[in-house]
Amino acid sequence: MEQVLAEIKPTEEEVKHLRRTVDGLLEAVKNKLSNADKRLRASLVGSASRGTWLRREKDLDVFVFFPKEYDKKEMEEVVTKIAGRVLENPKKHYAEHPYVRGLYKGFAVELVPCYSVKSASEIMSAVDRTPFHEAFVKEHIEGKEDEVRLLKQFLKGIGCYGAEAKVGGFSGYLAELLVIKYGSFQKALSATEKWRPGVTLYFGGKMDEKSLREKFATPLIFIDPVDSERNVASALTPERFSKFIFAAREYLARQRREFFFPEKRRDKISHVKKLFRARGTALLGVAFQRPDVVEDILYPQLAKALRALEKKLMKQDFGVVDARVLSGKRISLLFELESLDIPRAKLHFGPAVNSEHQESFLRKHRGGGGITEPFIRDDRWAVFVKRKYSNAKKFLSDFLGQKDLQSQGIPSHVARVIKGKGFELQVNEKALSEDLLHDLLEYFDPRPRWQL
Amino acid sequence: MEQVLAEIKPTEEEVKHLRRTVDGLLEAVKNKLSNADKRLRASLVGSASRGTWLRREKDLDVFVFFPKEYDKKEMEEVVTKIAGRVLENPKKHYAEHPYVRGLYKGFAVELVPCYSVKSASEIMSAVDRTPFHEAFVKEHIEGKEDEVRLLKQFLKGIGCYGAEAKVGGFSGYLAELLVIKYGSFQKALSATEKWRPGVTLYFGGKMDEKSLREKFATPLIFIDPVDSERNVASALTPERFSKFIFAAREYLARQRREFFFPEKRRDKISHVKKLFRARGTALLGVAFQRPDVVEDILYPQLAKALRALEKKLMKQDFGVVDARVLSGKRISLLFELESLDIPRAKLHFGPAVNSEHQESFLRKHRGGGGITEPFIRDDRWAVFVKRKYSNAKKFLSDFLGQKDLQSQGIPSHVARVIKGKGFELQVNEKALSEDLLHDLLEYFDPRPRWQL
Repeated sequence: MEQVLAEIKPTEEEVKHLRRTVDGLLEAVKNKLSNADKRLRASLVGSASRGTWLRREKDLDVFVFFPKEYDKKEMEEVVTKIAGRVLENPKKHYAEHPYVRGLYKGFAVELVPCYSVKSASEIMSAVDRTPFHEAFVKEHIEGKEDEVRLLKQFLKGIGCYGAEAKVGGFSGYLAELLVIKYGSFQKALSATEKWRPGVTLYFGGKMDEKSLREKFATPLIFIDPVDSERNVASALTPERFSKFIFAAREYLARQRREFFFPEKRRDKISHVKKLFRARGTALLGVAFQRPDVVEDILYPQLAKALRALEKKLMKQDFGVVDARVLSGKRISLLFELESLDIPRAKLHFGPAVNSEHQESFLRKHRGGGGITEPFIRDDRWAVFVKRKYSNAKKFLSDFLGQKDLQSQGIPSHVARVIKGKGFELQVNEKALSEDLLHDLLEYFDPRPRWQL
Repeated sequence: MEQVLAEIKPTEEEVKHLRRTVDGLLEAVKNKLSNADKRLRASLVGSASRGTWLRREKDLDVFVFFPKEYDKKEMEEVVTKIAGRVLENPKKHYAEHPYVRGLYKGFAVELVPCYSVKSASEIMSAVDRTPFHEAFVKEHIEGKEDEVRLLKQFLKGIGCYGAEAKVGGFSGYLAELLVIKYGSFQKALSATEKWRPGVTLYFGGKMDEKSLREKFATPLIFIDPVDSERNVASALTPERFSKFIFAAREYLARQRREFFFPEKRRDKISHVKKLFRARGTALLGVAFQRPDVVEDILYPQLAKALRALEKKLMKQDFGVVDARVLSGKRISLLFELESLDIPRAKLHFGPAVNSEHQESFLRKHRGGGGITEPFIRDDRWAVFVKRKYSNAKKFLSDFLGQKDLQSQGIPSHVARVIKGKGFELQVNEKALSEDLLHDLLEYFDPRPRWQL
């Protein structure tokens, strides 16, 4: 662990450089602020401020505090103006409300406007809560910064770091809270031995855990110490939760560097093709241009599109073995199928003989529309009907060619790109394109990273 | 109906000829009997005796009545001896006990020994009950013989006549009881409009129908008027029951000759092949020599063997669309499959992460035996395992090559022939052999007979 720490803890030189840079940045920002309105203040928040940042990270988050009289538009204008004078290459971004990203002396800076409120219960948007997180962590983290660093690097190494939709893992704040809660990196890992989905954590007096579990329904519930209505782990998926608790168990049994710094995969696409051929399955990929929308909106939409198409395929009786969103230059929704082709004939059972639904069944199926005429099997009617689709590619081609994809369960941005820019259906090895290599390797060889 | 009756009612000439033949036969039998033991009697039973036989039928059943002192062996000896003197080409058969079949002046004769008992409650085996059936029918059928003929011919025409296992339909006695119960052929058909599986019929005072349904659990229950513990329709399958009540409904709506005398199928095997190709399915036939055993034992065994193999195929993940016993020179157990081949890879889900079964799962699946290493999916373990069989023919070949088929659910006579004489696995059109044509047509074109 000392060796790992030596690699992730910023050097004295780095610390000094960061402090100098922050001082310069804040001075410049505050200068411009007081020109605009004497009441406006600015301060550094996040891991750089808390002393929990990792070596070689050069990210600075500066929050600008506004009185409640300002509306969003005015806050945006002030921050945009200041960014234009202080940052290189400033770009506006929109989350719940706008902020600006840019560069300052080689550091990536986010300049975020928020309201100055007295307590977390008065916040007007999620960013207003950040200063309270900042205060809580600063109050409790002193002396444990390196423990946070170890936990963050561990989470990175096992692929569970980041609360964004693409990952669905642990945020930096959640990592900090875990260290505060349990006292150290090692103790936090040890604690997970007793974690099961629904584990409920908090600071202070006993809470009604059962009702919290019902309220939040996530695998880990960690009540925000600055807002008891909020679950800090709300973005954590069951998969990342499970990967973390399993990795913790493995790490505690065998503490190896690979958990923090896994080997990089060096396999080529030819390796993926070999793995695919050994499976004997069929592949059908729906490739399309990456929708131009932030990842936190894109990835949930892609996941929904994947599930929607999977359901449609299964409803047509295609055997879907597995499915995955693959992300490269383009996006590919990959379906692994038992087979691309299924029989045209399907044995379909109908109502009981001489029951009230017999007539409508016979009216529908008599007269040569199907593969056979209706017949009696045991005490029910049956008929071999003709499937509309016996080839999965043909089905998806027709389905995705429809006018209104959104009403069919394909979310807006995905539907827009497919309609506007088109899509390509790729079969078997043609679905294994070079630019998807990273995700394809994870799909076809899903070993934990520390085992690579 | 008059036209049909004209075709199925014996001519006056036939009736006279039958009577003369019966008189001669009974005289000859009685003659030999009195030589053996004065107490022995003989009489004609069955449709020839009841006047319900169909034109061109030349079957005579003669029962020989023994006192209870005789044991089975002695009865067999007496009957065999008499048959040897009276019948041409006599052959012994065994049902519940032995009887002799032979020819007498062009008629097929069965000479059956039974015990002479005073009431049906004293019978010692099923044949002893026949004389009581005889008495009941004779007492009630007079004047309705032609109605019975119509019902029997109708049942023959729709393929529902005969209580033997191969058919699972209506016995002649059941047809007679239905006419006695309802008064005529037409009224019996009309009555079925209200029949639903579990319909319970009997003569005389109200019975507890619910407990009878629980006791017999057949689609039709007809309590034997000579033995209230017996269900005359016990051999009737749900399919024959349903076919009969549907045919009755159709016939009453449109009375056509085809119900009694359906067209013969004239299609060739090439037609079957064409029907098969249109389905897009795969066929796998298990062909073997017909076991040398009476049909009432053979057919239930074949049905069991079919279900056993179907289950085995499904357990290996082969998609069985349908399955059928085909009977020709050889027997074929035919399986219609979604596909002969399935992927080698199978996604297999394991225990929850960090649950008590995790270790044994990982021990079993780690280390490269499968298609992938174990991985975490949501909150559970998963792994792509290698199927033992990805080809259905290879699987059945290995399965049927086992030493002990009987312990694997294959009944005795089928197992014996497969082990002793071997089997042939036929794929797709090779499973469509000429000698199975009749059954193949019924399978691939299962229209009701009157629609041919």
